[in-house]
Amino acid sequence: MDEHRDVCWSKLTPLTFIQRNAKVYAEKTAIVHGDKRYTYAEFGARINQLASALRAAGMKKGDRVAFLVPNIPQMLEAHFAVPLAGGVLVAINTRLSPREVAYILDHSGSTFLFADTELSNVIEPSIGELKSVKHIVNIDDEGIAPTLDGADYEAFLETGSPDELDWVIEDEMELLCINYTSGTTGMPKGVMFSHRGAFINAIGEGIESSLTADSVYLWTLPMFHCNGWCFTWGVTALGGTHVCLRKIEPNVVWDIVANENVTHFNGAPVVLIGLANAENRPKKLTSPLTVTTAGAPPSPTIIATMQELGAKIIHVYGLTETYGPYTVCAPQPGWASLPSDERSQLMARQGVRFVVADGLRVVDEDMNDIPADGEAMGEVVMQGNMVMKGYYDDPEATATAFRGGWFHSGDVAVQHPDGYIELRDRSKDIIISGGENISSIEVEQALYRHEAVLEVAVIGVPHEKWGETPKAFVTLKEGREATEKDIIDFCRDQIAHYKCPTSIEFIALPKTSTGKIQKFVLRDKEWAGRETRIQGN
Amino acid sequence: MDEHRDVCWSKLTPLTFIQRNAKVYAEKTAIVHGDKRYTYAEFGARINQLASALRAAGMKKGDRVAFLVPNIPQMLEAHFAVPLAGGVLVAINTRLSPREVAYILDHSGSTFLFADTELSNVIEPSIGELKSVKHIVNIDDEGIAPTLDGADYEAFLETGSPDELDWVIEDEMELLCINYTSGTTGMPKGVMFSHRGAFINAIGEGIESSLTADSVYLWTLPMFHCNGWCFTWGVTALGGTHVCLRKIEPNVVWDIVANENVTHFNGAPVVLIGLANAENRPKKLTSPLTVTTAGAPPSPTIIATMQELGAKIIHVYGLTETYGPYTVCAPQPGWASLPSDERSQLMARQGVRFVVADGLRVVDEDMNDIPADGEAMGEVVMQGNMVMKGYYDDPEATATAFRGGWFHSGDVAVQHPDGYIELRDRSKDIIISGGENISSIEVEQALYRHEAVLEVAVIGVPHEKWGETPKAFVTLKEGREATEKDIIDFCRDQIAHYKCPTSIEFIALPKTSTGKIQKFVLRDKEWAGRETRIQGN
Repeated sequence: MDEHRDVCWSKLTPLTFIQRNAKVYAEKTAIVHGDKRYTYAEFGARINQLASALRAAGMKKGDRVAFLVPNIPQMLEAHFAVPLAGGVLVAINTRLSPREVAYILDHSGSTFLFADTELSNVIEPSIGELKSVKHIVNIDDEGIAPTLDGADYEAFLETGSPDELDWVIEDEMELLCINYTSGTTGMPKGVMFSHRGAFINAIGEGIESSLTADSVYLWTLPMFHCNGWCFTWGVTALGGTHVCLRKIEPNVVWDIVANENVTHFNGAPVVLIGLANAENRPKKLTSPLTVTTAGAPPSPTIIATMQELGAKIIHVYGLTETYGPYTVCAPQPGWASLPSDERSQLMARQGVRFVVADGLRVVDEDMNDIPADGEAMGEVVMQGNMVMKGYYDDPEATATAFRGGWFHSGDVAVQHPDGYIELRDRSKDIIISGGENISSIEVEQALYRHEAVLEVAVIGVPHEKWGETPKAFVTLKEGREATEKDIIDFCRDQIAHYKCPTSIEFIALPKTSTGKIQKFVLRDKEWAGRETRIQGN
Repeated sequence: MDEHRDVCWSKLTPLTFIQRNAKVYAEKTAIVHGDKRYTYAEFGARINQLASALRAAGMKKGDRVAFLVPNIPQMLEAHFAVPLAGGVLVAINTRLSPREVAYILDHSGSTFLFADTELSNVIEPSIGELKSVKHIVNIDDEGIAPTLDGADYEAFLETGSPDELDWVIEDEMELLCINYTSGTTGMPKGVMFSHRGAFINAIGEGIESSLTADSVYLWTLPMFHCNGWCFTWGVTALGGTHVCLRKIEPNVVWDIVANENVTHFNGAPVVLIGLANAENRPKKLTSPLTVTTAGAPPSPTIIATMQELGAKIIHVYGLTETYGPYTVCAPQPGWASLPSDERSQLMARQGVRFVVADGLRVVDEDMNDIPADGEAMGEVVMQGNMVMKGYYDDPEATATAFRGGWFHSGDVAVQHPDGYIELRDRSKDIIISGGENISSIEVEQALYRHEAVLEVAVIGVPHEKWGETPKAFVTLKEGREATEKDIIDFCRDQIAHYKCPTSIEFIALPKTSTGKIQKFVLRDKEWAGRETRIQGN
C-alpha cells in the first residue's frame, strides 16, 4: 500500500498536538505562570516565533539546542519550538554542577544554549571553554540581570515570526531530544527519544493519568526529567492547562492547588512526603486531584496518607530510557473495598505495562522469565516503542543496555502471581546477608510505617559474620522522637528478623537533584577502604 | 537507528490490547451478554481458541474471514481472533439482502463464513453459488437450529487451543479488515483498515469519549459499522466492559443502562431519537452516562433533550473510510454557561480533528481552502493515519477518492471562524433553488424544533420556475398532530423563506440498515422520469 502512503499514513510526532490546539483551543488558557496567562493561540505563536528565530539565527536541521531553565513557560515553548525548527532539544537538569553542565553541552555538541539568568553562575565557569556553543540566549524570568554575553529571550523571539512553520521531519523515528541521565556516579549518558516514541508516550500518559481538556496540571515534576515524563507534550495534546512552578515549596503547592483548581500533579515519593507534611495541607480536598507518582517505590504509608486526603494516587514506574513511566499499578475492581493498608500494599507495586507500551519481562541472567511467584527476583527488561533509541554518541553503552534485544533497566523485581511486578531494588541495592537476599526497599517500607519516621534509606554495611547486614539511615518528622531501639523493635514486629536493620543512624539524607536518595553516598562512607560488592552505575 | 529497531520500535496493532488485558484484567468482566459473563482471561482464551482453530482449519495468512453476526460476544472475539490468526476480518452488515451479502463474500474472496443461525436465510439463496467460501460455521446464540451445512461455533472453538499464539504481522500497515460501505446506490465498496490505523483510531476513541478501565460500554452501535467505530478494540484497550445487545429496542436499552451501570453508548441521531421518546426513559439519570453520536448531524433539539436527561453528549463525525469518527465537536470552556439552545447549536457542528488524527480541510474544487466564514461551502477532505488504505480490489475507486493526495469525503461543509466545521450536506443533497444553495440539513434542523416532529428529511424536488424547491418528508411523534401549513409557517419563522419547504408529506421515512435516512428513495420517487441534477454514489 505504499502507493497511497501520502494519504493513509502520517508521521507520529508531538508537534501535531500544538499544531491542533493552537487552533482548537485558541482562546483557552494553555499556561499559567504566577500572574501571567498564555492562551493556546499565544503559546502556539510564541513557539512559531522561537522556531523561526532559531532558523534565522543559523540553526540547522539536527542541531542540538540546550535549555538550562526551571519549570517556566519558556521551557514548554522549547519542547515544541526546537523540534519544529528541526533541532534536537537538550533539557538540562538545573541542579547539576558547572562541570556536569559543561560536559553535557560539549557531549551533545549543542550550538545554542538558553539559560535562565538565575543559573548564569552554572555557566560562567565554563564560558570560553565550551566546545560547541555558539549562541547564548538569556531568559530573565525573575528580574535578575543577565551576566552571560548573549541575546535576551524576548528580543530573540522578536526576530521570529508567529506564522505557522512547515515541519522538517523526514522520519517519525528521527531524533527529537536528548535527556542526560543523572547517574549517581560516572558522567551522564544522553538518552535519545524519537518523535514516534514521544507521541506514543505522551498519549499513554494522558490515558493512564486520565488527562482531559479540563485538566489543570501543576508542574511539581521538573521538565528536565524525561521532558516531565512527556507531560510537556501530553497535557498539550489533550488541551489541558499547564501551571508552571519555578521552585517546589510544599506550602506554595497547596496554595496553587486551591487557587488554580489544579486537577493533576506528578512527583517522586519524596515530593509527596514533603506535601503530606506541609503546614497548610488541607484536611480533605474539595475537588478531584490525581497525583501520579514514580521515581522510587512509594511506601504504602505515603499512598495511604494521600488517599485519606482524597487524592487519587496513580503509581507508575519507568526510567529516562523508557521516556519516563512505562508501567502502571492498574487498580482492580476489588481493591476499592479492601482495608486501606492492604490496598496501599497492592498499590505500592510497579504493576503492568502501559496500554500503549509493549514488551515487559522480569528475567534471570540468561534472559529466561523468572517464575511469577512474588519471590524469585530478576531484572526488569523492556522492548518496543516506549524504549529509547539508544545513548547519544555512545554505541558501547547502548549495546550493553540493549543486550539480548531488550533494554536492561538494572532494576530488580519480583513478579506476583497476578502478573504485577514489584521492584525489589536496583541491582546494587540488594543486601546479601548470610547468603540471604534482602530487599532494602522491603525494609524501608516497614520502617515508613513507624509514625515518627519521615524518610529512610537502608543499605548493606560490612559485617564480620554475615558479610553484610542492613543499616537504616532515618530522618524523623519535626517534633517527633524515637530511639534506635524503638525503631528496630518496631521493624522486628513486621518483617523477618534477619531483614531488620542492626543499626540506625539519624541524619538528613543525601539526595540527587531530582530528589532520589543517594544511597551511594551512604555506601561510600560505610564501605570506605573496602571493596564494595557491586559497582554502582 | 535501524540497527536497534528490534529494541526501540514495535508494531502498532490492536492485538496488543487483548494480549495485555487478558492478563492485566484476567478476573475482570470483559463481556456481558444477557446472563452470560466472560472475564478478560476467558475472552482472551476464546480468542486464542478461535485463532488456532482457524489456522488448524487451513486458514492462511491474508485469507478473508467473514462474520454475519449481530452484536454478540462472538463478534468481539472475531475482531481479535481473525487478525491474530493472520486473517482479514470482513464484518458484514446484518441487514443487507442475500444478493448484497453474496456480493461481499465473493468480492472479498472470503474463504470462511461465520453466520448467526437467525441470519441463515440471508445465506441460503446463495449456497452453492458462492465463489470462495469453503467453510461455514454456525453461531447459535438464540437456540435457533442451524440450517446451513457447517460446523457449530462452540465445537469449532474446541478444535483450537486457549494458549497464546504468536503474531504473524509483518508490517503495521498490513491489512487488518475490510468494511463494506452500505452505499445508497451501486454495489458496496470494501474499505481497507490497517493495524496501525485501527490502533490509533481505537486509542483516539478512548481519548475523545474518555473511556477508562471503569467504563461499561453498551453496544447500541452495530459492530459491523466500521468495527463499531473501532470501539471493539478501544473498549478492550482500556480494559472496560462490553455489554452486548442483539437488537436495539429503546425500552430494553434503558433497562440495561440501569441494571448494568452503563457509562457509555454510541449511536446515530436516529437511535437517540428513539431513546429520547421511549416510554421508560428516566426523567433524570442517576449516574454519569456519555453518549457519543455521529452518522448524521444531530439536531440541536436532540442534543438538548439528551443533555436535559443528564447525559454527556459527544458529537463526532467521520466515515467508514476514516475508521469511523474523525472529528469531534470539542466543547470550549465558555459553552457550559450558554443557554441550552445556543449550546446545542454549537454542539451540532462536526468540529475539529481528533487529537490523534491529522489532515482535515474544507476545500473547493481546485483543492483550495474555502474561507472559514461559516458561509462558504466546500468538500471535507482528510489525510493521515486515520484514513483507509483504499478500496479493496478497486484501484479506480481508490484513485478517485484519493485524488489530489487527500481522501474526498463527499460531504459538504462550512468552516466557522473558530475553525469548527459544520456539515451542510452530502454533495448530492444540496438543493439549488433559483440559483441559491440551500442546505437540506439546515432546513431539517429548523423543522426538528417543532414539538410534534419526530423525524424529517428534506430534499429538492422539481420546480417549473426555480429548478428545484425544498420538500419535507415528516414523521410525527405518536399522538401528536400538525398540518402542512403549521409546519411550513413554523419554519418560515426561523429561516429565510426561500429555504422553507413548499410542501410537506407525512410518511414513515425509508432508512438504510444502519439507520441512515435514504434520501435517494424519496428523490427517485419525486424525480421519476426526469434527469436528476447530481448522480448519487
